[in-house]
Amino acid sequence: MQHIHIIGLGLLGGSFGLALQQAKPELSFSGWDSNLDHAHEALALGLVQRIEETIPAETDVVLLATPVDTLPGLAAQVLEQVGPDTLVIDLGSTKGALCTALSQHPKRAQFLAGHPIAGTEYSGPRAATAGLLERKVFIVCEMERTDLHLKEKAYALLESLNMKLRFMDPEEHDRHLAFVSHLSHATSFMLGETVLQKMEDDRHIFDMAGSGFASTVRLAKSSPAMWTPIFLENRSHMLDALDRYIANLQELRGTLDRGDSAALHARLKAINRIQTILDLEP
Amino acid sequence: MQHIHIIGLGLLGGSFGLALQQAKPELSFSGWDSNLDHAHEALALGLVQRIEETIPAETDVVLLATPVDTLPGLAAQVLEQVGPDTLVIDLGSTKGALCTALSQHPKRAQFLAGHPIAGTEYSGPRAATAGLLERKVFIVCEMERTDLHLKEKAYALLESLNMKLRFMDPEEHDRHLAFVSHLSHATSFMLGETVLQKMEDDRHIFDMAGSGFASTVRLAKSSPAMWTPIFLENRSHMLDALDRYIANLQELRGTLDRGDSAALHARLKAINRIQTILDLEP
Repeated sequence: MQHIHIIGLGLLGGSFGLALQQAKPELSFSGWDSNLDHAHEALALGLVQRIEETIPAETDVVLLATPVDTLPGLAAQVLEQVGPDTLVIDLGSTKGALCTALSQHPKRAQFLAGHPIAGTEYSGPRAATAGLLERKVFIVCEMERTDLHLKEKAYALLESLNMKLRFMDPEEHDRHLAFVSHLSHATSFMLGETVLQKMEDDRHIFDMAGSGFASTVRLAKSSPAMWTPIFLENRSHMLDALDRYIANLQELRGTLDRGDSAALHARLKAINRIQTILDLEP
Repeated sequence: MQHIHIIGLGLLGGSFGLALQQAKPELSFSGWDSNLDHAHEALALGLVQRIEETIPAETDVVLLATPVDTLPGLAAQVLEQVGPDTLVIDLGSTKGALCTALSQHPKRAQFLAGHPIAGTEYSGPRAATAGLLERKVFIVCEMERTDLHLKEKAYALLESLNMKLRFMDPEEHDRHLAFVSHLSHATSFMLGETVLQKMEDDRHIFDMAGSGFASTVRLAKSSPAMWTPIFLENRSHMLDALDRYIANLQELRGTLDRGDSAALHARLKAINRIQTILDLEP
């Protein structure tokens, strides 16, 4: 391996650039971002070593780190451009639509569908950090559809970052992620909206907000450009997750309305077991 | 001042014990917890200097740090026991029911209704830390009903911890806190419940949970003994907060179902302004 090219130099693409430069100093790195301000900022921050709109011929691996609605078109176009020894990896948070779109692509074997479980509520090149990916899970979908030799390039890069590989099919990925990631973002955005609406009556309401509120509403700072297409691409599973969540809230509402202390206590206690589950390392 | 007595030696009572011993080393500290294991643990951890079921005669300030449903009875009983120069402060998360219950108490002027905006998802003596209260907001309700001379004892203690005083009436307190604290706990518990239910189909779902989920579900680890009475005592405001939150979720559901990308993007973007609000120090 000699060269990595990263398209999309925000939080995730930029963090891969920083981390891989540290882990693989023998490689060279270029990148591109359709937002030229971001491209220049990424260069100034050292997320890549040069900015190139055209993918360099010597590129071993192209990383696609753009919003999920752009990925099917971008991946197809990049596959057309690269030679037969280049692997294209996407890092998108939904996998079903993308895998379906590329399913019949003549160069499908040069593509790896990936999703690193890593992020923060911030976005753009300045949000990138070298440590973001360390020891995080990297999910690979339809691994059997990627060329064996090219896949080894991906695994070498991911292992150099100490990432933990998990394999599943795209439908399973999207169904699971709706619950353990996309729903969290929706609940946090809606909590933020509810309290912002309330602030119109009570301007000083945030003076009384503690660390619990801050933690629960943190994801409401996330990028709309990234999250609008994630919610929409994963719509059917999101609707299922939202329906179950709303049903649980309505049941809670009923328990409160009835003043049923014993039922409420038992229910909160049963939920507490999430503590032991979350403390387990993946 | 010479002596402080703390009833309830968990997260909050214990943190006051630790912090005040550091800030006011000239004072002596006793405490009590109806859970005798907790009382012994608190003593071993140095949260207070001795365990006393009877409030010592030399006590200047009694801090009540027990679940909110126990506070009206406990506060009335403690007021009966103490001499005329002792101040009783409660630290409960709801204020309306307690202030009403004590409204006609002959020793009402010896009581201060307080609420420190500080906590974590953990509970019990081991959860107490000396830094928990540092620079946090301490809300005082019905300040005009507390004796001026006794109030100064409270302010001296709270200032020694660098706490920031805020004053409001109990109804306003409970209405605001429903939105910026109690609702967060409800949304987090219900997120935890929804994902735990989903785990019955997919045992490995938590492998895919990232830091966003962990942050959003953190409060679902909170103590049911503490939170059941808070939700129930603040029932009417909680029902209002839950109704508004559920309505926002249902509107989100509709937007997703229609696939209205522009509306969804605009809405998430409007919610992003919570970032600038949360970054303001209270």
